Amino acid sequence: MKRYQLHFFLLCFVLLFTNLAAQRPPAISSPDVHSDGSVTFRYFSKTASKITLNGEFLTSSIDLVKDTSGIWSVTVPPVKPDIYPYSFTVDNVQTSDPNNTYLFANERFKRSIVEIPGKEPLIHSLQNVPHGKLHYRYYNSKTLNIHRQVLVYTPPNMDLSGKTKYPVLYLIHGGSDTEETWTKVGKTNLIADNLIAQGKSKSMIIVMPYGNVRPAPLADFTKDVALDIIPFIDQNYPTINNAGGRAIAGFSVGGGQTLNIGFTNLDKFATICSYAPYTATEEFKTHFSNWSPDANQINSKLKLFTISVGTEDFLYESVKNNITMFKDKGINIKPFIVDGGHTWMNCKLFLSTTLQEIFKN
Amino acid sequence: MKRYQLHFFLLCFVLLFTNLAAQRPPAISSPDVHSDGSVTFRYFSKTASKITLNGEFLTSSIDLVKDTSGIWSVTVPPVKPDIYPYSFTVDNVQTSDPNNTYLFANERFKRSIVEIPGKEPLIHSLQNVPHGKLHYRYYNSKTLNIHRQVLVYTPPNMDLSGKTKYPVLYLIHGGSDTEETWTKVGKTNLIADNLIAQGKSKSMIIVMPYGNVRPAPLADFTKDVALDIIPFIDQNYPTINNAGGRAIAGFSVGGGQTLNIGFTNLDKFATICSYAPYTATEEFKTHFSNWSPDANQINSKLKLFTISVGTEDFLYESVKNNITMFKDKGINIKPFIVDGGHTWMNCKLFLSTTLQEIFKN
Repeated sequence: MKRYQLHFFLLCFVLLFTNLAAQRPPAISSPDVHSDGSVTFRYFSKTASKITLNGEFLTSSIDLVKDTSGIWSVTVPPVKPDIYPYSFTVDNVQTSDPNNTYLFANERFKRSIVEIPGKEPLIHSLQNVPHGKLHYRYYNSKTLNIHRQVLVYTPPNMDLSGKTKYPVLYLIHGGSDTEETWTKVGKTNLIADNLIAQGKSKSMIIVMPYGNVRPAPLADFTKDVALDIIPFIDQNYPTINNAGGRAIAGFSVGGGQTLNIGFTNLDKFATICSYAPYTATEEFKTHFSNWSPDANQINSKLKLFTISVGTEDFLYESVKNNITMFKDKGINIKPFIVDGGHTWMNCKLFLSTTLQEIFKN
Repeated sequence: MKRYQLHFFLLCFVLLFTNLAAQRPPAISSPDVHSDGSVTFRYFSKTASKITLNGEFLTSSIDLVKDTSGIWSVTVPPVKPDIYPYSFTVDNVQTSDPNNTYLFANERFKRSIVEIPGKEPLIHSLQNVPHGKLHYRYYNSKTLNIHRQVLVYTPPNMDLSGKTKYPVLYLIHGGSDTEETWTKVGKTNLIADNLIAQGKSKSMIIVMPYGNVRPAPLADFTKDVALDIIPFIDQNYPTINNAGGRAIAGFSVGGGQTLNIGFTNLDKFATICSYAPYTATEEFKTHFSNWSPDANQINSKLKLFTISVGTEDFLYESVKNNITMFKDKGINIKPFIVDGGHTWMNCKLFLSTTLQEIFKN
């Protein structure tokens, strides 16, 4: 799973590199994905007393076994093709895999990523199709009084003349994720490339902001999207500048933000797709606990409103209550209930589904 | 240095998140950069017997001290404003800082990054100036038979009509770095934004490919640049499509690649800037050990040829020999010798200097 094996000369180079070399562990290969989909994980420690592997392809953590050279390892049986986060717990401390370049973009969890390829390319696989561009941009958030980074996907062969206008999906990450999680872990750009190439998705722009606002209340992010990000995008990209041309989606804390932002800005978003929303927030309580909506008016504005969740998600009961609440208020909602937990494997499934449903009329 | 303090509700969320919560360390703040430029580093472990801090702001590693709760810490005196890599060594194993989101993009070294702000913004600081775009693109490398990622910086307010043509700097990372290291660690996009805003640098496109080719010989990367990357860039961006409009630069292994690629492709590059080149490679030996150049012809093609290095660089003697070799062959070379070692602090200095020198005539 390491990009490539190190050359001997590069190894020499590494040893030369600094006088700290003696303190470095040996170069070991982890994870090793075998052709049958089984995977060997390795970790080097002469001194640890217990090392376990935690992975979203496992139902519970499993122990690594140490050899005489201090290399701990474990091989797991064939895993269903997908992209999974995993980590080691070394004597009670969670750590990413020091021999794997691919890290889960997150401010809190220290995890690595392992990709199990399918026999046929999966919807997130890098394929020989036209590729869109992923832009790393800075915008000036007047709301938050800071320059913030935002990622913008533009579709393959976008018309730069300005004659063609594109719809825009605003896509928000989970609680301690970053603006890179939807691409680095969720593979949004590759999923969009593939679905557009297959004719299953409209060409669209996808905007991935940084959704965490701390210690300020999360409500500020709603303002940031409405007053700063949307104007920045509409100024800088050939967008369909109305509610029908905009969708908002997000996962977990971002799924809760999606509901807050969407339903308080129906003049800006006609499509709202919430994935496993976390809604135990002050902002959600403010907006929805004593909510008396004019359902007919809202339904006439909404082109699509979905809430997606897995039945093993730790938020499943809460999300079911959310769905019931919206139904009870008379809001047209399309629930999407699948297997699985609160995972980025399901995020990719939810996004793939959304991309095939939105901006179709 | 963590982006923001965690909210209590988010902490609850984290605890709820999975049943692994009991195995997670407490949320501690590391690194804490104080207003005087001193920094406190922290690491949690109940079981480690020795933890040291290694940082490029230190002359040698220093020990962290454990408190009764298992939090190890050390405070270093005020550090010169810059961006520095650092790591912990926990019982002989090098690790990045588990509480710091900012990681050094590298396939081998596991390091974190700490930014010490200056009283005035530094040349790499995010400032309120027009920002260029950073594009993550895929190109089809026929040479390597793979789709590879390449990062492309386009300058602020680039003329998209195609009427204005821009010069292009090809910029290559170090030995085990990735295509993201020049931006994530080297802050190339922000340095270019700032120098362009100050009128000190021409508006230009900067292309940052992935330079590692393993296990194939590095010579394949020379072909990849010449036959795949340059055509891709010239097809997709409004470039000055000749040697005068192209420069190549790189650091360490990338500095050696820069010399190989540049001098074997003088029809494509009139500017060659090599930073602390690593030249103990077969490819360099092939090109330069029995080299009998027509110096006049080469000098007539070269607009600028620089080799930069710090006097404390572990490659300093080797780089001095490289400079002498080129001088002895009669090649016009502008050496740039500064203080410091084989570091990305110096990389930023070398790049800032290059950006102010190239494409000026």
